[in-house]
Amino acid sequence: VGRVKGYTAERELVIKLWKLGFAVMRAPASGSKIRKAKYPDIVAIKSGKVLVFEVKSRSKVENIYLRSEQVEKLREFTERSGGQAYIVIKLLGSDWRVIELECLEKMSNGNYRLSKELILKSKTLDELLRNLRLIPSLEDFIKRSTYEGG
Amino acid sequence: VGRVKGYTAERELVIKLWKLGFAVMRAPASGSKIRKAKYPDIVAIKSGKVLVFEVKSRSKVENIYLRSEQVEKLREFTERSGGQAYIVIKLLGSDWRVIELECLEKMSNGNYRLSKELILKSKTLDELLRNLRLIPSLEDFIKRSTYEGG
Repeated sequence: VGRVKGYTAERELVIKLWKLGFAVMRAPASGSKIRKAKYPDIVAIKSGKVLVFEVKSRSKVENIYLRSEQVEKLREFTERSGGQAYIVIKLLGSDWRVIELECLEKMSNGNYRLSKELILKSKTLDELLRNLRLIPSLEDFIKRSTYEGG
Repeated sequence: VGRVKGYTAERELVIKLWKLGFAVMRAPASGSKIRKAKYPDIVAIKSGKVLVFEVKSRSKVENIYLRSEQVEKLREFTERSGGQAYIVIKLLGSDWRVIELECLEKMSNGNYRLSKELILKSKTLDELLRNLRLIPSLEDFIKRSTYEGG
């Protein structure tokens, strides 16, 4: 069930990012073991800016755990690409939330935790994309109207 | 058979690009119809430079044909990403050869042709990557030795 839900969330995110003008690649769905070992869930690129996403889907806000190998692979991919990595969380009945990969806490067993406190105060995906100037901000809209008006 | 051969070539190219330091994404292998419609075969990224590859595998040099929708999808993805698109050809017993997507000839039926003449005078993948400064050139090696020596 978790797997199916995860794929649905991924598909939804792919569509959203494509509509926002990104070139989007999604990891192969088949042979999920190999896949998890090699690829991030989603890579979205716009004008040379590379965003690497690990997608999580949750029905409530709770701590999220990631295996150390998974985090290392994400880091390796991101470093090679010159991009930025994020955990992106689909919360039931809420917006997409994003947390920088580097905000994860390393636990004593080597794995990583994303605390629910961090999730609660995280940015939405739209906020992140506006901050990165990958989608227009309110100011951009105002400026554009001003130019067009005057 | 063509399909299996194609996948083998793709896997080989993924491994080669990864060894050269690229972050590499390969399109989902399952549901090949959806896949062909949406994703390029391989996207390789290094330090924000995005290379979009359509992979072909041939036992001899011959004209290669691409459907117009396929070329349009490649262009759309490439434009969004801010990258460069190439047809990359695995010729049996030879190096990988690359041709810029824009070198394809549009035929009267709307589809595209890559002539065998263009394939014969095409660059190798290594030449392309050196030209783009994505892998070190001979000059880079000489410079490096000079610095290290002096």
